[in-house]
Order: sequence, then structure tokens, then C-alpha cells
Amino acid sequence: MDEIVTLPDVEHTHVRFDAGIALECGVALDSHTVAYRTYGTLNAARTNAILVCHALTGDQYAAERHPVTGKPGWWDMVVGPGRPVDTNRFFVICANVLGGCMGSTGPMDPKPGGAGERWGTDFPAVTIRDMVRAQKQLIDHLGIERLFAVLGGSVGGMQVLEWAASYPEMVFAALPIASASYHSAQNIAFHEVGRQAIFADPNWAGGRYWETGRIPAQGLAVARMCAHITYMSEESLTRKFGRRLQNAPKNPSEAIALFGEMFEVESYLRHQGSTFVQRFDANSYLTITRAADYFDLGADYKGDLANAFRGTKTRFLLASFTSDWLYPTAESRAIARALNRAGANVSFVEFPTDKGHDAFLLDEPDFHRALAGFLGGCAVHAGLTG
Amino acid sequence: MDEIVTLPDVEHTHVRFDAGIALECGVALDSHTVAYRTYGTLNAARTNAILVCHALTGDQYAAERHPVTGKPGWWDMVVGPGRPVDTNRFFVICANVLGGCMGSTGPMDPKPGGAGERWGTDFPAVTIRDMVRAQKQLIDHLGIERLFAVLGGSVGGMQVLEWAASYPEMVFAALPIASASYHSAQNIAFHEVGRQAIFADPNWAGGRYWETGRIPAQGLAVARMCAHITYMSEESLTRKFGRRLQNAPKNPSEAIALFGEMFEVESYLRHQGSTFVQRFDANSYLTITRAADYFDLGADYKGDLANAFRGTKTRFLLASFTSDWLYPTAESRAIARALNRAGANVSFVEFPTDKGHDAFLLDEPDFHRALAGFLGGCAVHAGLTG
Repeated sequence: MDEIVTLPDVEHTHVRFDAGIALECGVALDSHTVAYRTYGTLNAARTNAILVCHALTGDQYAAERHPVTGKPGWWDMVVGPGRPVDTNRFFVICANVLGGCMGSTGPMDPKPGGAGERWGTDFPAVTIRDMVRAQKQLIDHLGIERLFAVLGGSVGGMQVLEWAASYPEMVFAALPIASASYHSAQNIAFHEVGRQAIFADPNWAGGRYWETGRIPAQGLAVARMCAHITYMSEESLTRKFGRRLQNAPKNPSEAIALFGEMFEVESYLRHQGSTFVQRFDANSYLTITRAADYFDLGADYKGDLANAFRGTKTRFLLASFTSDWLYPTAESRAIARALNRAGANVSFVEFPTDKGHDAFLLDEPDFHRALAGFLGGCAVHAGLTG
Repeated sequence: MDEIVTLPDVEHTHVRFDAGIALECGVALDSHTVAYRTYGTLNAARTNAILVCHALTGDQYAAERHPVTGKPGWWDMVVGPGRPVDTNRFFVICANVLGGCMGSTGPMDPKPGGAGERWGTDFPAVTIRDMVRAQKQLIDHLGIERLFAVLGGSVGGMQVLEWAASYPEMVFAALPIASASYHSAQNIAFHEVGRQAIFADPNWAGGRYWETGRIPAQGLAVARMCAHITYMSEESLTRKFGRRLQNAPKNPSEAIALFGEMFEVESYLRHQGSTFVQRFDANSYLTITRAADYFDLGADYKGDLANAFRGTKTRFLLASFTSDWLYPTAESRAIARALNRAGANVSFVEFPTDKGHDAFLLDEPDFHRALAGFLGGCAVHAGLTG
């Protein structure tokens, strides 16, 4: 693992914006790149576009084989021909977030005027709003005046909320899934553990790990392991692993001697950690976790989330999952209440599942039926035919 | 932090057992030490002794100023004159667990025949049962034939269960608080994150950090931070910190620029991590977390926890706390059911609180009243007067 200097060199579909972007933190990027993928066909009226926003460590490869890992797209079950987000009908766009590491401008890119130097920890702080503004540049570039829907889970759901608040006239339907309007103290705390694990890695080198030829793989893996526990429920961990042993010991003495390599759940977590570092950059992880932690849409609107949505015509579908303790139902319900106070058109469904936060990525037929049904209904209201 | 080589050199009250102890893993310690503290006075009949078992990273200084940190004892609110465990009436014993780092034999001790070498990662795997057997040696040494009560929270509660199962005739009353009869997959997973953080520390040096003069402080701090989140509830984190900022920024740009030092909860967690490493040894942390992970009392009794308690005359009080998600009420209830199946005398109380797992260490008047009441009732049954 120590040998990897940078992520695999993959050519990503992208657009470069030479006008740049002025970030909320006060720093302006003179120019920047947004990497994206599309699925399906934009209709002649340009009215059938759906923007999918990816989660913390997701990327634009939502519905196709991933160019680095070779695995299916992270939302293959949801996006595709005949799927709930039907690409026979809709034109789906997914962009890598600003600050990411799959082709959009981020900390591993060259620092302007830095003589080949990279940004590293000097990369400016990025907010969810900045991410959404970069996506808006992409949508404008594609010649799309209004998105039929904006859809995303987790940190992707935060982007959906920001879209609906910042550009209500551009969003016919908004679907924030398993998300929240702000990051809780517990979520911030878990992210901080991950960040400290990265800082503690011997290869961190103050964020300039590319200079030494070694990435902070162990620290990043620990960060991922810790985060991964929060994506699952206690029930799903128990169902998948329980206390099953990895190397079936022959007797109690041997079982005890095998300590540390013993439980299947330990081995599973280590695998999650070690595969993650092959596709994700540590500085991007810091940038994006901080963007999520800083998100507090209500605070941006004088402390009342309803202010973010007053007068909106957007149709909302909020979805949460019973065993999700990272973005619990209460947080989606709070958004639903704010939308109700703002007089918005809102549906809210909580799905029973034991799969935890990750349920939004997994095989949840009821959730998928609800997505398809809601989008179908909205399509009628939007006058989308065919 | 990097300068600390070993923990402060404190002389702990202790007893050395030259007969040693044969551990469950098959390794025998030729001799070993148990460090302990006592509070109150043993009566002439030697019938008023209460053994308090400490939790994962606790120690024997339950009810007095801690010799290293200078802080009050970890259970000062519960143990003392006029307290729920009244030292005017009871003789309270608390021993550092085997594998610990406050005077009982553990990984930082010299390895026998090692020419001054320490045990380090060669220290044999220790189980909860081993810890209890070492405590039993201490109780025998003190000339106590029967303990009036054995009492402890969290991993201390596991020791209480093991006492009641292994030495039922020696335990008049058993009080496992906020505990479980086995470690869940989620608990194992969180422990594994902490262990991996220690292994990832540049000063870990394969566990032989004393040779370099630097302890794996950052990794151990990350382990503690991660564990600390699990000791609190989301509600208590929100109540204590919410999204409050640490360095009150003057404007949004500055707030964003302050990323990372921003939220109070981050600063609090870092403080928890950095103070912990001044009093705890990394190899002990590995040893004790693994003992907790391995604990599965039902499995030791043919897969039915009730078998551990058949025919017992011990009186049990089980206590849990509503917001404890590390050792949730369901796990205490499962113990209560097993005790019922075994025909044992069992009381079970769940206390409403938003303080999470840590509630057993904090100011919880209802819990304290229940402890005092239960012990008072048992004292009558035990014929303890005065």
C-alpha cells in the first residue's frame, strides 16, 4: 500500500471553466474543472435532465463500471434503463464534487503559480454551496435551464437541499435521501476522529505526502473503517458477522491466541479500509468531510430552515431509513417540517430496514418503488411525456 | 506528548502472587502482581466486603484522588462515606485488572528471563475470566471467604457476571451495570478501529516503543477519541457542544477558514485523547480491548447463558440506561431473561437519561438511589447489621 504515490491516472470526461469560481471562504479559483458522466439522452426541449449528487466519498461513476476499481457503479440499482431513475426516459448527470479526487479540481491538482507544486492542505476550504455552484456551472454549460430533478443521498442530499434553496426556479423536483440540513455534533466527532487518524499517519508529512512517494494509507484506512461502522447498523453488522471467527480455531486456547485476526468483522473492516485508499485521496477526504461538517442550511437562513424554501414551487420527496443512526429519521422529519412551514409540496417516507445508512445504496425495493413512483408523478406534472 | 517514555512512576499498593496464574490461553505467568485499593473497614466477621470492578480504562483508584491525574476517583459519587456504596458500612476493594498499567501485571512489566526486556506485544492474551481469577486470588489473600457484593459497570459488569458464574458461593449480590454478556459486532468493530489507529502510529514500533523513547501517543489518542464518542449519546454531545464554534469567527469567510479547529466538540475530543495517553499504556489498551471483545459468557456455557447461573443463590441487580447505545438495554434485558430461566433472584431497572453509556459514572440520582436501596435490602437478607 505504501508504494502508491498518486491515484491511478485515469482520463475523466470533464469541462474546464476558465472564468473560475469565487469560493465562500473568500478564495477565488482562477479556473477549475468539473468532471462528470451522463446516462441516457437529453430530449429536444432539454426538460428531462436529472442531476444525481454523490455522497462523501462517491464520484461521478454512478451507473457504469468504475474506471479505477472495476466495480459496478455505486447507484447501478437506481440509475439505468428500466431502473427507478430510468435512463430510457431521463438524461442523468453526475458530477464529481469540487474538492474531490476523480477529475474535478481538488487538493491534488497543481497549485496555480506553484511551479508544478500541488495544492495539498493549501487547497481552500470548500462548502456544500460551493460544490453546488460548480454543478450549476456544469448544468449551464450543458444548456439546461431547468433540472427535472435533483437527487442524492447522505452528503449528496445536502447538495440537493442547497440546490433547492439556492436555485429553486431550476429544480422541478428535489429528492434528499437519508440526509440532514446540518451535521450533528456526533457526525462532526466521527469525522474528526478520521481526520486525526490521517494526521497521525507517519506518511502524512504535513499533507505533502506526494513528495515522499508514500501516501498516508494507514491513517486514511482507519478513517474509512471508523466511518464505515457509522454507515451500517448494529443489526446489519450482527447479521453479516456477529461474533463469527475468521480462522476457525481448534480449541479455546487457540481462539484466544488468534486474538486480533479473529473476528470476521475485523477482517471485513480492514478490507474496507485498505481498498478505499486505492481510490481516494487523503487531502480530498479532509476537504469534503469539513464541507459536510460545516453545512448548516438553517443557519445560512437566519436560523430558520423554512426561510430557505419560502415560496418554492419545487416538489420534495424526503426519504429516511429506520436503522440509519448517522442521518436518523428525525433529521429528515425536521426538514419536512421546515418545508411544511414554508408551504412547500413535500412527501416524506421512512423505510423499515436493518441496513443502516447504507440502505440508500442497497437493494431496498420499497425505496426504489417510491423513487420511481414519485418521479413518474412529477413527470406528469412537469408535462414530460414518453 | 512524544517525550513521554513510560507512565509516571507511582508506587501502587499491591500483592505479589509467587504461585503465578495459568491463563486461559495456555500461557502460565510464574508470578504476578495485583494492585488494589480499599475503602472502609472490614468487619470482624469479614462479611461486609464489596468488590468493585473497573471498566476498560479505569483503575483501582475508584474513590480517592488519582495519583497520576490528580483528579477525583472515577466513582467518587458512588463509593464513599454516606454514598450509595457506603464505606461507613462496607469494606470496598478495587483492583487493577490483569493486563492493566496501574500496578497489576501487564505488558509494560519485565518479561521473565528477558534480561530486563519488557513483555510488550508478547504479553499473553488475557480474558475476563483470567482477570476475575486474579481478583479471586486477592480476595483469598485478604482472608475474605464470601463477598457481600460484586459491582461494576461496562467491562466491569462483565467481570461481575464472570464472578457470579465462576464463584457463585462467594457472591451474595451481583450488580452488573450498563453491561453485556458478550461483545457485539459493532463494539468489536469500534475496538478494532482503535487498535488499527495504534498500529498506524509512527511511534508504535511494533509495540516496542519504549526502546525509541517515544510512545504511540497520536494513535492511542485517536483510539480514545473514537471510543469516547461511543461512551456518549448523540443527545449529550448535542447538549454539551451542538455546533458551537470554538474560536468565534467574525464572519462566514473566517469561520470557513478556521476549519478543523472550529467546533467545540473537536477540541473536546482532542483533549480527551491527549490526556488519556498520559495515564494509559498502548499495549495495555490492546490487551484489555481484546479481552472485552473475546468475552462471551453464554458461549462458555454451551451457548445458553442460563447455564452459567443454574442453581445460583446470588441476588442480581441489572441496570441499564436508555441512551446507552454501546451496551444497550436489550443486552441487559437478555441477561435478565437468562437469569430468570435459571430461576435466579433478579431485579432489572432501566434508567431514563440522555448521558449515554457514561451515565453509570455520572450524577444519576435515581440510579444511585437504586444502588443504595438494593444493597440495603441485600444487607438485611445477609444478616449484616449496623
